[in-house]
Amino acid sequence: MQSANTTSLYVPQTLPVARAIALRHEVEAFNAEYCAMLDTGSVERWPEFFVEDCIYRITARENAELNMPVGLVYAQGRAMLHDRAIAISRTQMFAPRYNLHIVSNTRVTSESPNGEFAAQANFMLLQTLIEGPTTIHMAGSYFDRFVREGQQLLLKERQVIYDTTIIANDLVYPV
Amino acid sequence: MQSANTTSLYVPQTLPVARAIALRHEVEAFNAEYCAMLDTGSVERWPEFFVEDCIYRITARENAELNMPVGLVYAQGRAMLHDRAIAISRTQMFAPRYNLHIVSNTRVTSESPNGEFAAQANFMLLQTLIEGPTTIHMAGSYFDRFVREGQQLLLKERQVIYDTTIIANDLVYPV
Amino acid sequence: MQSANTTSLYVPQTLPVARAIALRHEVEAFNAEYCAMLDTGSVERWPEFFVEDCIYRITARENAELNMPVGLVYAQGRAMLHDRAIAISRTQMFAPRYNLHIVSNTRVTSESPNGEFAAQANFMLLQTLIEGPTTIHMAGSYFDRFVREGQQLLLKERQVIYDTTIIANDLVYPV
Repeated sequence: MQSANTTSLYVPQTLPVARAIALRHEVEAFNAEYCAMLDTGSVERWPEFFVEDCIYRITARENAELNMPVGLVYAQGRAMLHDRAIAISRTQMFAPRYNLHIVSNTRVTSESPNGEFAAQANFMLLQTLIEGPTTIHMAGSYFDRFVREGQQLLLKERQVIYDTTIIANDLVYPV
Repeated sequence: MQSANTTSLYVPQTLPVARAIALRHEVEAFNAEYCAMLDTGSVERWPEFFVEDCIYRITARENAELNMPVGLVYAQGRAMLHDRAIAISRTQMFAPRYNLHIVSNTRVTSESPNGEFAAQANFMLLQTLIEGPTTIHMAGSYFDRFVREGQQLLLKERQVIYDTTIIANDLVYPV
Repeated sequence: MQSANTTSLYVPQTLPVARAIALRHEVEAFNAEYCAMLDTGSVERWPEFFVEDCIYRITARENAELNMPVGLVYAQGRAMLHDRAIAISRTQMFAPRYNLHIVSNTRVTSESPNGEFAAQANFMLLQTLIEGPTTIHMAGSYFDRFVREGQQLLLKERQVIYDTTIIANDLVYPV
């Protein structure tokens, strides 16, 4: 929680402004595609947004700030994402609902000579249950590492750091 | 609701990335103007954001996914928007409140040879009543078709697809 | 509240579109940095986002629309922001929580010959208390004036106009 020593997540943006903006536009386009895929229930396409040798993790901010990377969800390699996606698309483990992502505050913080770069964005995952209001199911930040394969931007690593401490048990679905 | 066959709303982005980004910037500017106009109660200017021969519709996501385009609100042609705007600006049919739009996840999905293009964005409509908290009144997506008249980007079609299933009866006001 | 005469806050965008978009990208980058700084509790860096001779104010929309600029918070000059930041970082006056800003709908509305320009954006400040859900603590708009010092964009004035009428008494923390 907010205290004198919770700044471990703050990474200043160190790129030249014009370069950071150009990369940000690509990340925004990527995230809009990624979220549209998830929000329309096309989870079987989820692994296509990652490189083969990838990491996907969902962690509470409290743990992340303490550098305890133990996460609620951890997957390594596209094959593991694929298994997960197939399992989810074949199972209806939760009450029907609509998901809607709102992503903002995208920042590209650094770029390596090999073209890999680090980005960050804030997100809200809104949920609407049948005959219910729309609520904030989860809010937090993406901490990403992107690489290129050909023209295509892909995730090498996505760390989902969530603020919301009470999480319903349906977190099997990717964020 | 989320099931095996709810992907009808997912439209992959098919434009070259650079072109999609350039058009997205224009759409973001357009939507920021559009929402500022609505949020400040300048509804009499609402028809100025559409071409003469336009369609405006508000539909529940449930209906849209079943390809049932019957909507809560339907207007065809700028004259009909104008009548609606005048009626709203002259009538106080609802309790005083503040509206605030949050628009994100803008995507330009396709462009025709004649310059018309399709775009999408997620929105939240926040409302604040007197001495009350700010709540999510409605969340959903815009599905738009844009055209140009001179330098000016204008809506040929705006489909507002909302997730939120309980809608207060004050939906006379545009989104 | 929403009535016939609440349009005083609406400022049409008067810049050429391409120029407005270019400046908007810089403002979006600035705001992403600003909010990341606040959300990670790095408040001691808050004054670095302003010029020496600056104004920072937090005002209810109701007052702003009536041109009553009396605010909840008012600070003039970077020294005053600095004092405030130091006081906040040394005092734990409120229950532990996470802050997360969502900023959208950024508009650059005008630019002066000397390079100073006016911008606007909508924001939500989300808060998550220990073992609680994430809620909308405050929603509203930034009304800003930006200047450049060297390559660096800085705030000459930030007016935070909030819709949310019930504000908890912890508003000592900047928005």
